[in-house]
Amino acid sequence: MNPICEIITIGDEILIGQTIDTNSAWIGEHMSMIGLPVKRIISISDSPGEIRSALRDSMSRAEVVLITGGLGPTNDDRTKATLAEFFDSKLVENRVVLEDIHHILSAGNYPVSAVNLAQAMVPENCRVIRNPQGTAPGMWFEKDGKVVISMPGVPYEMKAIMENSGLAMLADFFHTPAILHKTLMTTGLGESRLAGLLTSWEDALPGDFSLAYLPSPGMVRLRISGTGQDRIQLETIMAELTASLSVLIEEYLFGFDEISLEETVGKALLERNLTVSTAESCTGGSIGHLITRIPGSSAYFKGGIIAYANDIKIKYLDVTQDMLLEHGAVSQAVVEQMAKGCCLHFGTVFSLATSGIAGPDGGTIEKPVGTTWVAVAGPGGVVSKKFQFGEHREHNIVRASLAALNLLRIEVLKETIS
Amino acid sequence: MNPICEIITIGDEILIGQTIDTNSAWIGEHMSMIGLPVKRIISISDSPGEIRSALRDSMSRAEVVLITGGLGPTNDDRTKATLAEFFDSKLVENRVVLEDIHHILSAGNYPVSAVNLAQAMVPENCRVIRNPQGTAPGMWFEKDGKVVISMPGVPYEMKAIMENSGLAMLADFFHTPAILHKTLMTTGLGESRLAGLLTSWEDALPGDFSLAYLPSPGMVRLRISGTGQDRIQLETIMAELTASLSVLIEEYLFGFDEISLEETVGKALLERNLTVSTAESCTGGSIGHLITRIPGSSAYFKGGIIAYANDIKIKYLDVTQDMLLEHGAVSQAVVEQMAKGCCLHFGTVFSLATSGIAGPDGGTIEKPVGTTWVAVAGPGGVVSKKFQFGEHREHNIVRASLAALNLLRIEVLKETIS
Repeated sequence: MNPICEIITIGDEILIGQTIDTNSAWIGEHMSMIGLPVKRIISISDSPGEIRSALRDSMSRAEVVLITGGLGPTNDDRTKATLAEFFDSKLVENRVVLEDIHHILSAGNYPVSAVNLAQAMVPENCRVIRNPQGTAPGMWFEKDGKVVISMPGVPYEMKAIMENSGLAMLADFFHTPAILHKTLMTTGLGESRLAGLLTSWEDALPGDFSLAYLPSPGMVRLRISGTGQDRIQLETIMAELTASLSVLIEEYLFGFDEISLEETVGKALLERNLTVSTAESCTGGSIGHLITRIPGSSAYFKGGIIAYANDIKIKYLDVTQDMLLEHGAVSQAVVEQMAKGCCLHFGTVFSLATSGIAGPDGGTIEKPVGTTWVAVAGPGGVVSKKFQFGEHREHNIVRASLAALNLLRIEVLKETIS
Repeated sequence: MNPICEIITIGDEILIGQTIDTNSAWIGEHMSMIGLPVKRIISISDSPGEIRSALRDSMSRAEVVLITGGLGPTNDDRTKATLAEFFDSKLVENRVVLEDIHHILSAGNYPVSAVNLAQAMVPENCRVIRNPQGTAPGMWFEKDGKVVISMPGVPYEMKAIMENSGLAMLADFFHTPAILHKTLMTTGLGESRLAGLLTSWEDALPGDFSLAYLPSPGMVRLRISGTGQDRIQLETIMAELTASLSVLIEEYLFGFDEISLEETVGKALLERNLTVSTAESCTGGSIGHLITRIPGSSAYFKGGIIAYANDIKIKYLDVTQDMLLEHGAVSQAVVEQMAKGCCLHFGTVFSLATSGIAGPDGGTIEKPVGTTWVAVAGPGGVVSKKFQFGEHREHNIVRASLAALNLLRIEVLKETIS
């Protein structure tokens, strides 16, 4: 049987609801990916008695206990003293940690305070796991063949410690079998329809491989997992499975391993030295926001029109009053004209456009809430697609944004790399 | 001493990191607001053994145990059977729940399946708490003067059960003293500078009142809390404190009790029958997105220009090449012209504009990453303001968006309500 893991998060801010515990979800996902599944998560306050009792209970049930929090510069003495006592040790200054603290603070031009120096004190019998992102080190304790790791609660510090060292150290310590994962990022087809499409592919999976569906609004991540003793063989099979799955979902697959759709589209444009602009009605700026969240997006994004009112569509995108009267704003004719007009006015190679009824009002029997048209204009002309989303305004905006970006991705990939 | 509370969340999806546990934060916040603070949160898998052991442990420490999850139509038998056994009871059909199930499903035109009917089976000795949003009822158990509430894990169902009944029933059962809260929503000043501004106000707070700072990027919520036996007296003092605090932070205060800045601005525009358009450079569409997230925003938002490239600023916002050469795109002259040009071109009463260096690249010694100008043009002319934000691109975009919306709010409030 696999060793099991528990998480203890320390901090009043979680108990009073000021902070949502995102660390545990990240740890849970990554520990199950190395074959050390999390069986319990416990959130407690920052008091020695609570820490002692939670740690004692967890160690009675689990082989690995991961502790986050309680190590900030203002309160780490208490947590570390409690850990030192629990593991029958005492706090001593650690030279490596001290150097890391000086290094990190001087890089940011911060002075080194007495509080910072105290962070170099660690229980003598722990193994320090260096923190590349902050002044509080990770600490690895062993007792009766069980492992406890204590880490700071700042999410990017915890992740850096786990990704750089912690996960590999745990896999090594427990001799877990090799586990491989490959995540395929998809958009445009819901979980149940994807599952229908993939039934026979899933049925033919080798015994040590499995497929997980991880949905979020407008997207489904597909994760293939495989376990075995022979890593090379696993990698070969994984490559074959990834290839055969990719073919089946080509239209919906936009990338691998947690890349975002806007980043994929940005890379495709950049590689081809192409530009894009946006003409957004129902998405109201959401697509521009997604594109410009990516650093360096100014190299391919020139800008856009948020054409919420019809007269803006007429004035800046060459939509005509006749089109609006004949087809309505949420129509193929109008959304295609929006994309073409945007290309022309902004002087970009591509433009995308959206027009839809986000809700909760504005629906009719013919065009209920969720009816959405997206279009992309480019060197190959203009293409458009109709979607029928649901009744949830914010989800409709997300789904329309992703649908337009995915159509753009498909059109951009038709261009050759210069 | 106050009774204390523990939360048990049931569900593998939390342990494997597929779902982030947002329920516990919501419960933690609302329980501390009625004087029943959460002292521990435990997440476990959906197995009878785990449920029994976690529940036994929690009841040995706490007076209230709130359970979420494990009650979906596909798996509630197990959880409910475990609870029935734990409380020495048996499952019986509950007529009120049965009627609610028929009512909810028929309202949505869904058929009533055997699985749904099974949801009407509840432990005989529990008190049903009706669920206005779904088919799984809340269940209230009492044992040795302690209370256990079991609720579905769907966030809006859990919140409906707690807000409509659960919180009041708990306050009543434990005779907690009256507690009042008032939240003041602020933007534009960080936590530490706000705290500096409010030192003497805080020092003069009556003994039973306190102030909490709840920061998030670009915003700080200030929550005044007061406890006592006499609710009328508490309300009087709370009104006085809210008024005196509001005066001190007038420039930063945009609303009360969790309203968003974009909703406040929307209401102010709507009340005055005014319109707005946006000219966004560094925010890249984020402000348009925030404004149009609000249902009904088409009544006051006509649209905008995302002027990411300089030639778009020239073409659509009447910024001149000379201005760009003399002052640069991130300057008072350019951002003010962007706002004025946008007003003119879009024919709106107000326009707002942003221009800044979001990072991580593009900074200079004179204008480091984070340098941001925002402007608002309106009937009173154009006003602008410079901000120096940090190095985090996404935070800079959020902070610039909120800064521009807040400047708009201040200018809109100068107009009389028609």
